[in-house]
Amino acid sequence: MQNRVKIGMFGYGVVGQGLHDVLLSSRGFRSDIKKICVKDRTKKRRINPEHFTFDRDEILNDDEINLVVELISDAEEAYHIVKRALISGKNVVSANKRMLAQHLPEMIELQKKHNVSLLYEAACCGCIPIIRNLEEYYDNEMLLSVRGIFNGSTNFILSKMYNENSDYATVLKQAQELGYAEADPALDVEGYDARDKLAIISLHAFGLFLDPEEIFTYGITNISPYDLQYAHEKGLKLKLVPTVRKIDESTIASYVIPQFVQPQHFLFNVENEYNGVVTEAAFSNKQFFYGKGAGGHPTGSAVLSDISANSYEYRYEYKKLFQKIETNYTRDIPIEIYYRYHHKKDLDIIPFTDILESYKSREYNFVVGTISLNDLYKLRPQLSTMNVFLARTPEKGVAAEQ
Amino acid sequence: MQNRVKIGMFGYGVVGQGLHDVLLSSRGFRSDIKKICVKDRTKKRRINPEHFTFDRDEILNDDEINLVVELISDAEEAYHIVKRALISGKNVVSANKRMLAQHLPEMIELQKKHNVSLLYEAACCGCIPIIRNLEEYYDNEMLLSVRGIFNGSTNFILSKMYNENSDYATVLKQAQELGYAEADPALDVEGYDARDKLAIISLHAFGLFLDPEEIFTYGITNISPYDLQYAHEKGLKLKLVPTVRKIDESTIASYVIPQFVQPQHFLFNVENEYNGVVTEAAFSNKQFFYGKGAGGHPTGSAVLSDISANSYEYRYEYKKLFQKIETNYTRDIPIEIYYRYHHKKDLDIIPFTDILESYKSREYNFVVGTISLNDLYKLRPQLSTMNVFLARTPEKGVAAEQ
Repeated sequence: MQNRVKIGMFGYGVVGQGLHDVLLSSRGFRSDIKKICVKDRTKKRRINPEHFTFDRDEILNDDEINLVVELISDAEEAYHIVKRALISGKNVVSANKRMLAQHLPEMIELQKKHNVSLLYEAACCGCIPIIRNLEEYYDNEMLLSVRGIFNGSTNFILSKMYNENSDYATVLKQAQELGYAEADPALDVEGYDARDKLAIISLHAFGLFLDPEEIFTYGITNISPYDLQYAHEKGLKLKLVPTVRKIDESTIASYVIPQFVQPQHFLFNVENEYNGVVTEAAFSNKQFFYGKGAGGHPTGSAVLSDISANSYEYRYEYKKLFQKIETNYTRDIPIEIYYRYHHKKDLDIIPFTDILESYKSREYNFVVGTISLNDLYKLRPQLSTMNVFLARTPEKGVAAEQ
Repeated sequence: MQNRVKIGMFGYGVVGQGLHDVLLSSRGFRSDIKKICVKDRTKKRRINPEHFTFDRDEILNDDEINLVVELISDAEEAYHIVKRALISGKNVVSANKRMLAQHLPEMIELQKKHNVSLLYEAACCGCIPIIRNLEEYYDNEMLLSVRGIFNGSTNFILSKMYNENSDYATVLKQAQELGYAEADPALDVEGYDARDKLAIISLHAFGLFLDPEEIFTYGITNISPYDLQYAHEKGLKLKLVPTVRKIDESTIASYVIPQFVQPQHFLFNVENEYNGVVTEAAFSNKQFFYGKGAGGHPTGSAVLSDISANSYEYRYEYKKLFQKIETNYTRDIPIEIYYRYHHKKDLDIIPFTDILESYKSREYNFVVGTISLNDLYKLRPQLSTMNVFLARTPEKGVAAEQ
């Protein structure tokens, strides 16, 4: 049975306005947005000022409001809002991956303790229903890996740079103007946004919560025309591919690294603000989900889907977590990377265990080699300041079968 | 909360055995198969004979069994089993698209009247969770179209013929040996299996149930090397693409016709026994789901997913049906087709409203032209007996954006 929903909303940015449009157009679903709490008192907004409040208590202390929809970008503030809402017995729908990746264990406790529901499909991959499918459809499948393109903004940048030979700064600006980028673009381009989503997805896929800080994360800020030229010459594309995969029966590994992708791979055709998720499982084998990963309407439609599920009393069961199957995490795995550098000293500090290819020219040099993920992890502080770029080589194992 | 499941199973063919494997390997889910009802008393089976019964009453009259899993191929028999199970208060999981496409309205009534649940994710597109996503994720989205590759067997045949230049008969035999084909191959190759799935999907996507007979359906039995040569020359592939789409606010149209597909279209890379579903919606835009559409393990994993959902008291709400939005069905639409023929009389009987291209040679002739879907529908009896082949021309509207 469907319950009547009275919504208190936080935030009226790209996603908030998108949700508003989607709600207004929905013919099947009945819900009221009673109040929208925003921060900026001076900003001109497209709807009547009477809808807004600047006082969060006006929502959090209102007993008539049974659902809080949290769509602000400040993760710290979101944490306090969501926590208070859950404690006061309100269900919550959130799109804040930053906040969730930092506080998911506590959020699970709060849901249990106060018998409330927190849904966050829109926090991962825009309108791709990946959390729901991991929870409901793969709940008893033995997943082997989940990987994909989780961040619309970096994918937009990589697509434009590759397809239109545009430079990084111009394209980043374009992504921001289109509302694809986070308020703080570093979250996108340094790979942190994709990493946070990977942490959330890993919990639902493998039942293990990872502190995002433990995940080796390398973004796209150091990409140069040489790297794109390399991709073009080999008929490959460059994508930022967060990956979590099983290493053995009870151990998983994960990382966020740019990757060269072959044409027959499904991720090859995931362009611009679109996202794609590839799952591999023991029985259902490979599956691929594709959809818009950014923008107000697609993300708004994911939020609406959670609001609707909420009205049917749906909640995540965190089945894999309570099955307690994959319990170990490791970075002690070898990975094969392309490493572009210009000075010998920048090569020397990388402890490759094996060099497979080596190229030198006046413009740039690269090697293709194998390295321990753990060694890469230790080099994080240096890597970010160096004029080098690294990317995983194409992986045969995940290519679409054809 | 999860309820304990006691299963009575009907059928132990490809899917039944696949489910059995999946259940045995599942570490998180607890269920018992109490009894398996099979037909053939002489067949040697890989598990102990004590698991089997030849008397359906032994399951249907057993009060301890609270879930019937129906995995037989005979649609008529499946109908009687499922109906009796629902009436006697048992929940049912079925993979029988044939039966469902013929009896869905009655099955919805029975669920309501007897307060039981009938789930059938495995009936559509193997392990792609399309029904669940239409029900739960798109429940308030304004869908514009659903199309894709719904039949693993025909896709396997088309892939092998195209990629390996194999002939139709050889490849059909191969598909049957691999367990991809229905017991009666005509259901696959004439497009009826895809059509039945389209009818089920249309109900969940648009809330309108279509008598499968009303859907114009043209399979792949008449395909010739000329048609594949045409595809190769144009850089296209041939796929059997069931389609349902909105024509205006309250009207939908649907058909099952082979279609030439462009390389940038996601369906282009859906090969062999894989299936793919493309949805278009007002806010979430284009989405694509990909996975194995045939075979014991993938289909078994979809059945397990339903068994698990059932234990959490999940049931379809048929939200779009009860929202009563799209209520009209039409065949009064123009479609553009490639039409290969050899004799002028075979061209003359086709009432094209417009001929866009025309080709003649000693080996074969074709035209590309526009025709009313309704006129094609009327020609069904003749078309199946003629040495001609028709396929839709590539559709720009559904290409992946890039």
